Amino acid sequence: MTNMMKAIVKDKRGFGASLQEVPVPTIGDQEVLIQVKATSICGTDVHIYAWDEWSQSRVKPPYVFGHEFAGVVVEKGENVYNVEVGDHVSAETHIVCGHCPQCLNGQAHICANTQIIGVDRDGCFAEYVALPAQNLWKNDPELPFDVASVQEPFGNAVHTVLAGDVAGKTVAVIGCGPIGIMAVGVAKAAGASQVIAFDLNNYRLQLATEMGATTVVNSKEADPLEVMNQLTNGNGVDVVCEMSGHPIAMNQGFKMVTNGGRVSILSLPVKPVEIDVTNDIVFKGVTVQGITGRQMFKTWQQVSGLLGSGQVDVKPLITHHFKLEEFEKGFELMIEGKCGKVVLHP
Amino acid sequence: MTNMMKAIVKDKRGFGASLQEVPVPTIGDQEVLIQVKATSICGTDVHIYAWDEWSQSRVKPPYVFGHEFAGVVVEKGENVYNVEVGDHVSAETHIVCGHCPQCLNGQAHICANTQIIGVDRDGCFAEYVALPAQNLWKNDPELPFDVASVQEPFGNAVHTVLAGDVAGKTVAVIGCGPIGIMAVGVAKAAGASQVIAFDLNNYRLQLATEMGATTVVNSKEADPLEVMNQLTNGNGVDVVCEMSGHPIAMNQGFKMVTNGGRVSILSLPVKPVEIDVTNDIVFKGVTVQGITGRQMFKTWQQVSGLLGSGQVDVKPLITHHFKLEEFEKGFELMIEGKCGKVVLHP
Amino acid sequence: MTNMMKAIVKDKRGFGASLQEVPVPTIGDQEVLIQVKATSICGTDVHIYAWDEWSQSRVKPPYVFGHEFAGVVVEKGENVYNVEVGDHVSAETHIVCGHCPQCLNGQAHICANTQIIGVDRDGCFAEYVALPAQNLWKNDPELPFDVASVQEPFGNAVHTVLAGDVAGKTVAVIGCGPIGIMAVGVAKAAGASQVIAFDLNNYRLQLATEMGATTVVNSKEADPLEVMNQLTNGNGVDVVCEMSGHPIAMNQGFKMVTNGGRVSILSLPVKPVEIDVTNDIVFKGVTVQGITGRQMFKTWQQVSGLLGSGQVDVKPLITHHFKLEEFEKGFELMIEGKCGKVVLHP
Amino acid sequence: MTNMMKAIVKDKRGFGASLQEVPVPTIGDQEVLIQVKATSICGTDVHIYAWDEWSQSRVKPPYVFGHEFAGVVVEKGENVYNVEVGDHVSAETHIVCGHCPQCLNGQAHICANTQIIGVDRDGCFAEYVALPAQNLWKNDPELPFDVASVQEPFGNAVHTVLAGDVAGKTVAVIGCGPIGIMAVGVAKAAGASQVIAFDLNNYRLQLATEMGATTVVNSKEADPLEVMNQLTNGNGVDVVCEMSGHPIAMNQGFKMVTNGGRVSILSLPVKPVEIDVTNDIVFKGVTVQGITGRQMFKTWQQVSGLLGSGQVDVKPLITHHFKLEEFEKGFELMIEGKCGKVVLHP
Repeated sequence: MTNMMKAIVKDKRGFGASLQEVPVPTIGDQEVLIQVKATSICGTDVHIYAWDEWSQSRVKPPYVFGHEFAGVVVEKGENVYNVEVGDHVSAETHIVCGHCPQCLNGQAHICANTQIIGVDRDGCFAEYVALPAQNLWKNDPELPFDVASVQEPFGNAVHTVLAGDVAGKTVAVIGCGPIGIMAVGVAKAAGASQVIAFDLNNYRLQLATEMGATTVVNSKEADPLEVMNQLTNGNGVDVVCEMSGHPIAMNQGFKMVTNGGRVSILSLPVKPVEIDVTNDIVFKGVTVQGITGRQMFKTWQQVSGLLGSGQVDVKPLITHHFKLEEFEKGFELMIEGKCGKVVLHP
Repeated sequence: MTNMMKAIVKDKRGFGASLQEVPVPTIGDQEVLIQVKATSICGTDVHIYAWDEWSQSRVKPPYVFGHEFAGVVVEKGENVYNVEVGDHVSAETHIVCGHCPQCLNGQAHICANTQIIGVDRDGCFAEYVALPAQNLWKNDPELPFDVASVQEPFGNAVHTVLAGDVAGKTVAVIGCGPIGIMAVGVAKAAGASQVIAFDLNNYRLQLATEMGATTVVNSKEADPLEVMNQLTNGNGVDVVCEMSGHPIAMNQGFKMVTNGGRVSILSLPVKPVEIDVTNDIVFKGVTVQGITGRQMFKTWQQVSGLLGSGQVDVKPLITHHFKLEEFEKGFELMIEGKCGKVVLHP
Repeated sequence: MTNMMKAIVKDKRGFGASLQEVPVPTIGDQEVLIQVKATSICGTDVHIYAWDEWSQSRVKPPYVFGHEFAGVVVEKGENVYNVEVGDHVSAETHIVCGHCPQCLNGQAHICANTQIIGVDRDGCFAEYVALPAQNLWKNDPELPFDVASVQEPFGNAVHTVLAGDVAGKTVAVIGCGPIGIMAVGVAKAAGASQVIAFDLNNYRLQLATEMGATTVVNSKEADPLEVMNQLTNGNGVDVVCEMSGHPIAMNQGFKMVTNGGRVSILSLPVKPVEIDVTNDIVFKGVTVQGITGRQMFKTWQQVSGLLGSGQVDVKPLITHHFKLEEFEKGFELMIEGKCGKVVLHP
Repeated sequence: MTNMMKAIVKDKRGFGASLQEVPVPTIGDQEVLIQVKATSICGTDVHIYAWDEWSQSRVKPPYVFGHEFAGVVVEKGENVYNVEVGDHVSAETHIVCGHCPQCLNGQAHICANTQIIGVDRDGCFAEYVALPAQNLWKNDPELPFDVASVQEPFGNAVHTVLAGDVAGKTVAVIGCGPIGIMAVGVAKAAGASQVIAFDLNNYRLQLATEMGATTVVNSKEADPLEVMNQLTNGNGVDVVCEMSGHPIAMNQGFKMVTNGGRVSILSLPVKPVEIDVTNDIVFKGVTVQGITGRQMFKTWQQVSGLLGSGQVDVKPLITHHFKLEEFEKGFELMIEGKCGKVVLHP
């Protein structure tokens, strides 16, 4: 291992990032150094790259960003017992406090003191990353690095879809960004009788079809509620996975769900949303769930089970591979929405 | 039994109602005739009485209204097997279709084809009422008629509070109308460590105290979020029962709830409500439940268990008794908010 | 419709049954007459046919037996509202009281006053069957009659497998009678990462493979616990579906399940079973579920969803078709265990 | 702090224990030294003291035993962040591995690699005890030390009773050792409509009455099933908490529970138990739960909520106080069953 490494650095308060030589990180007693083999670009990374309002208020350049990856352990601190040098690993992005009521009752993923890898500290768009041992997830060495890299966002999809029953039920996925498309695959693998995917982008609807959607709807071209009514004999869908963040689409979700159904929201609308609480939640007896992160580590166990067994094949969704140096191509594609997952290889 | 009876008739499209002599109803094969011994006034009855916008679009005068009652079976149809003449009974207010997906999967309380007693057909503000046998709930003959009469709204409180765990948890009840006050009693009986009641009406906050609230807050006089922070060391409450219907109070509820907590909404805001979905639902991993009616008849079993055992004593909440003829006094008190439950005795 | 019909009658207290001409049944106000198009043989029918101890104490010859079927409504009583003449239907086998605590709280399938079609009253091994309208399940007319006929036992499999989470988990199915084989298909469709099937009969293990088992084990030829340990890195399986009724196999199930796992028992051991409660249930924090019948009608909704969507294809399991008159061939195959489901066509 | 301290040492392989002077333990980086203020005797301690078969195979004298306590932090390792010197604390008895599937999915209390304080390493029958910081539970300084000391077994009661719904339901507690008696209190506080306690020891049934049992039954003096039938109109109880470990009593529990009910087993029968799986579990659709330890730390949160709020008052159950030196008196009382909880004060 050399002392310097290549990394994509968010170097200034503005659009873009730059490839730089930076020191390989050193590790503490309870940390691990990982050689990154594949790292994928998340929508959050695009926000940081494009320097949107949220990024401006949250991140502090210069630093290395990125948080989705797969790699190999190359060094471990002396108080690390859960992995060995040579193990294939990915990591949970949320570093939690361990002491708050949520951490203490099995809900660490909503710890109020969470730090996020690649947001609040250096991330994995680099040749090496240093992480707390307790955040690592051991991968089966047979799992390809690119597939292992997208486990983190796949975990968001799993957390959302499997937050309630799915087998034999009708599921609507509203918003087909990469996580929405993965949600389609998860719902299909978990036995949904119908998986109806909604988006405005035909490229991504095509990917949703490849991942198992039984119907895809371009909401500009057809009335989502009308389609849904035809497909469910007017009963509505049992489960809505809201992944668009658009107030209109979200409200279509609330209209779409059947009485007693579930609306699981992973998206992050930029402003408060007007919701017809009386008619769309109360009278219908609907359950609305806010979903964030991945249950630690229940969701990761589900992810491994679904990917390792082949119940879900995410290969069709990994549409682009670049060298780390070519990161700008990846970000451009993400901004244009002309891709599934983009994986960088350091 | 005579052929005519006294009844409170919503006689015209406008404010008020009138006491009239009307025919005692006749019953079908699967129906039962009940002599009403006690009947209590619901907020919905007040809406009909005062002729608000909802009533104007929904109810069709002239008809007998009212739906909360206790009485004695005096006649039964030939295909009625669940009750006998002489049985003490109350009734579930929702008459459901029995054939829709919700009726078929144990969620009849959100049947999309529901008819409501005293809204869509004649009700119980009368000496007698005719009802489908399948809607009846048999009361212990030792349960006083006035207490038995308020089981229906008590069931709303039970359905809301017990829609998740309560024992050892902190519960906020926002809005202390009669059902909110009952929710206080249910939460206390179910083992809540704190029951914090919010309202603007000191009379009703006093009733909440009598029903077991550990803290009552007049939201005009103190900042609800500040009080909550002091009481929970800044962690927020585990459970919010939203019973106010006010957008500001509802949003205070969303701010109040701890990460991973539950917001159970029984109230019916008159307009869509702006909700900070991202910060108050998604990032916090909150579960929001729409609550309507009573689970048929799981909730009624819980109601009987809680009232019959003395775990909840609703007597302090039954503040006024009138003869049926004096119904106008009862409605006035309800409109002024200077009462708990008002019971009429035919 | 003629006045007489062919039916398989359990005609005497002893082995066997006979084909007879019997009157077409008449129907009451709330009943429906159905022309039977396909009817499948259940293990319970074999018990009655072979006249085992249970049958001797329970059924009262002469009567028409059989309870799994699909058919077409040909006549309906005047108080029947949920089906029309011409509708394709199957039926829930449990006729429940509607008034007991279980019926009233959404658990009608364990009503203590249940009557069973084809056991306690005339069944469907006949050209026509008369049934209470409330027991009917409407089939999609596109669903083939033979597939529709096996929905009832398929419902047992669904009820067992989906009594908890399955997606991404390891599932053991112990005992591969027809319902066990269907359970394999359900677990696979619901996203199980591994489905391990155990039996002593290689014919049926072959069917389990066709339905999606990832591993099949003949428990005479390999040590079930050793196989399971290899397949789960010594952790044990997450879910055990016990469908054998054998005390040794059942106890292997208890040894096989991981800490915190679930053992769902549909089988009916003929004698009490010795269980190591301390080590296999308490210390492991295991949940054991008794499963009987189908949730009315939540399970039927799941069944329709899984079969109608093609998520489960039961065709490989329907191994034999006979005319009603050839019923003896079917029973012989069932007794020998050389079949999947056997369907009779009146 | 001196270098030596008093401790009760299990000093040899045989009956009894001895008070000795032993070195005050030293602590590691992630450990804490606690001055013990109150420590209570558990049934497990009595097994070790009396040197039963289980103890002979598990524990390795000489060592300090005891695991229930409350104390004050007097020293902390440099990597300890969750407590400060001066904090009042108790501790979870299970020291878990943190890496197994159960630890990773929120079920650490059934970690297969668990070490137990006072069993597998030195315990708290001493003036000081050293423990891993992650096992500590911070107590409200206003909680009396004796009450805080019994939180650990109280947690067993909470874990058992609150493993499902209780409010408005009928609960049977079979076996009134100290944890059974606490279970009575928890069930009452959580809103049970009836709490029926069974034992053979009238002294302990008297304590059960003081803790809120609505009926107590000496199973030698009355037929438990007959009593239960009278109290539930023949329907059976909704919840059985099995805390006796006796095969006959356990089977009475299975007969007692209503269809669809729950049997939560905390007890540890010394041999396998014959259970009528077909009639008592499958046909009744019963759920059986093995309960061990306390959910970490969900149960502790519930414990704090119930004790801190006064919803449960355990004072009547703490029947005896002794100096540490008088431990033999305490063990004698425990062996005779003439006590509730016995608290030792170092």
